[in-house]
Amino acid sequence: MPTVVVDVMLKPEILDPQGQAILRALPTLGFDDVTSVRQGKHFELEIAGGDPQSVAHQVAETLLANPVIEDFTVTVTN
Amino acid sequence: MPTVVVDVMLKPEILDPQGQAILRALPTLGFDDVTSVRQGKHFELEIAGGDPQSVAHQVAETLLANPVIEDFTVTVTN
Amino acid sequence: MPTVVVDVMLKPEILDPQGQAILRALPTLGFDDVTSVRQGKHFELEIAGGDPQSVAHQVAETLLANPVIEDFTVTVTN
Amino acid sequence: MPTVVVDVMLKPEILDPQGQAILRALPTLGFDDVTSVRQGKHFELEIAGGDPQSVAHQVAETLLANPVIEDFTVTVTN
Repeated sequence: MPTVVVDVMLKPEILDPQGQAILRALPTLGFDDVTSVRQGKHFELEIAGGDPQSVAHQVAETLLANPVIEDFTVTVTN
Repeated sequence: MPTVVVDVMLKPEILDPQGQAILRALPTLGFDDVTSVRQGKHFELEIAGGDPQSVAHQVAETLLANPVIEDFTVTVTN
Repeated sequence: MPTVVVDVMLKPEILDPQGQAILRALPTLGFDDVTSVRQGKHFELEIAGGDPQSVAHQVAETLLANPVIEDFTVTVTN
Repeated sequence: MPTVVVDVMLKPEILDPQGQAILRALPTLGFDDVTSVRQGKHFELEIAGGDPQSVAHQVAETLLANPVIEDFTVTVTN
């Protein structure tokens, strides 16, 4: 059965305070080489019929992401 | 500069109520073919030096995931 | 030591797909009386000095919420 | 109509990496008095009938929290 991954991120122009907190915490742990962190949501769907790419795209638009403030990507694996 | 993706999911044996809510909502919207939904976190890091895979793995273990209840994957792209 | 709670919600005019998913799932579980669900973030801070309300407000503005898309409340308990 | 707040937190003995990231970031922003940060989820439900406290408790157990790893509180306001 195809597994479909949907990743949802805030649009690049929208500040992501959770990513900022992680970025600022990293040097205190000795990680000085990380220059950007952004946090989003990751969904794994199993889809038993239809066109998995198309179904996942519609599901993402409806229930997983808010298209006004977020972008999403759909990746089908087998 | 390499971009590294870290995806964090609850371990498979741990119930994911957020994913369950989405799964149960889908038939009410006409999506009858989705048989499983699990939700996790998705992080995108830019790493300016060192071994990006290794740095991201250490960052994930320390600040992004709780290894007792979560699994994570690290994927380096360019 | 004072404990301060910061609750962060998407502004009311911004669609909350996670809350929508929960709302749509509820009747399938026999919960027919819930008419609205919105999901946000909840933070509990312990603050050892200064004015806890003021400190928490500044922390919320900087690291916990994105004021462009989110509202937050600060509640001090003892 | 009663509004019910459900706050969901990881159990105290379970490490919360998101809270840790925020805690570690705070001194870099000049906030030296915060000694603990934990992050959870916050839900606001409107409930049109039945016993709001009881309904929200059942909803929380079923769809909002994973009782194995999370605790929750239910607060009814009017």
